[in-house]
Amino acid sequence: MSDLILYVGNKNYSSWSFRPWIALEAAGVPFTDKVIPFDFAAGNPQFRDLSPTGKVPVLHHGAVRVWESLAIIEYVAELFPERGLWPRDAAARAEARAISMEMLSGFRAIRNACPMNIRRKPGKIDLPDGVRDDVARIETIWKDAIARSGGPFLFGAFSAADAMYAPVVSRFEAYCLTQDETVLAYMARVKAHPAWQKWQAAAEAEPWIVPEDEV
Amino acid sequence: MSDLILYVGNKNYSSWSFRPWIALEAAGVPFTDKVIPFDFAAGNPQFRDLSPTGKVPVLHHGAVRVWESLAIIEYVAELFPERGLWPRDAAARAEARAISMEMLSGFRAIRNACPMNIRRKPGKIDLPDGVRDDVARIETIWKDAIARSGGPFLFGAFSAADAMYAPVVSRFEAYCLTQDETVLAYMARVKAHPAWQKWQAAAEAEPWIVPEDEV
Repeated sequence: MSDLILYVGNKNYSSWSFRPWIALEAAGVPFTDKVIPFDFAAGNPQFRDLSPTGKVPVLHHGAVRVWESLAIIEYVAELFPERGLWPRDAAARAEARAISMEMLSGFRAIRNACPMNIRRKPGKIDLPDGVRDDVARIETIWKDAIARSGGPFLFGAFSAADAMYAPVVSRFEAYCLTQDETVLAYMARVKAHPAWQKWQAAAEAEPWIVPEDEV
Repeated sequence: MSDLILYVGNKNYSSWSFRPWIALEAAGVPFTDKVIPFDFAAGNPQFRDLSPTGKVPVLHHGAVRVWESLAIIEYVAELFPERGLWPRDAAARAEARAISMEMLSGFRAIRNACPMNIRRKPGKIDLPDGVRDDVARIETIWKDAIARSGGPFLFGAFSAADAMYAPVVSRFEAYCLTQDETVLAYMARVKAHPAWQKWQAAAEAEPWIVPEDEV
C-alpha cells in the first residue's frame, strides 16, 4: 500500500478524476485509489472532509492535501522525476503545459454538452453552439503535437498532456465527434493503453447511474 | 532588451495578461512586454500570428511560444529557478499550484459579472447568483494561506499564487466585494507592491475604452 491516496469520483463519469488517475497509473507511480461515489440527492458529505473544495479528485500524502487535477499531476511529477510525467525537453514541456491548461480552463461547450460517460454506446447528439469549434481546436492541438513528436502519443511517450485529454478521447468516441483519420488513430492508441483499459473495466463494473450525465 | 517577450492585451482590462506579467515583474525576471490592444470591431488579426490560440497572453522565447497564463509562469519559473516564482517548500508549492489552478479553472461567476477594470471608481453592483459563493471561497483561500505562512503574501514572499489572484484583488476593490479586515489588509499589500503600481500606472494611461467591460 502506497502512502499516496487518490480519491476519485465515479469512474464512469468523473472526467476530472480520470486525468490524474491515468497520469499516475500510466507512469507507474505507486498509489492507492478510493472511489467516493457522487450522491446526487444530498451531496456527499465525505467530499468536504477529504478536500478543502469539497470536490474530487484530491490526493492525500501524509498531511499534504492536493486538489485540482493538474496540481495533483505537478505534485507527483516532482515526487517522481524519473517517471517522466512531463516531456523532458523544455520546449515540449512548455507546450504540454500550455495545452493542459487550455483543457483545464476552457472547452466549456464540449464539456457541458457531452458529459464523459465511459459506458455510453457511441452515437451522435444534437450539438449546441461552440462544440464544433472546441472539436476543431482539439483536433489541431493533437495533430500539431503528434506531427512534431512523431507519436505515438502527443509528446512521444504517454505524458501528463495525454492524461489531461483522456476524458476528451472518451467524449470524441461516445458522441462520434470526429472523422479525422489521424485523430481516430491517436484515440485508438490511447484507448489501447493498459491504464485506460484498467479504468474502463472499473467504470463498466460500477453500479451507479447518474441521469443528468446520460444524454 | 531581454529575449523573453510577453505579449499582453489592454492593461486596464486583460486579467489573463496581468497574471504572468505581475509574476515576472515581481520576481525581477528580465522581459519585454508588448501591448496588443483588443480590436472589438474586427478582432485583432495580430493575435492569430502571435499565438496558436489567437489569444493573449503569449510568451515568445526564440522559437518557443508559450500560451495560457499559468503555463507561461511555469516556463519562466523553470528558466529562473533562483527567482522563487513558486514557494520553495514542496507542500506550500503544492497548495500554491492547487489554488492557482482553482483560479484558472473556476470562479466563473465573479469573472463574468465583475470584469477587471483597473480604472473603475469603486462602487457596488447588483451581484448575480454565484458571485457571493466565489467571494467566500476566495476569502477562505487567502486567509488560510496567510494564516499558515504568516504573510505578508499568500506564501510569505510574493509568488505565482499572488500573481494568479492579482486580477481578483482588483475586482474585489472595484466592486466592493469584501469587508473582511484580513482580506482588505492583504489586498492593500498587493496593491502597494511596486509591480502592481507599475501595471496600474500603465493601465491608467491607456486611451482605450471597452464598453462591455464597463459595468
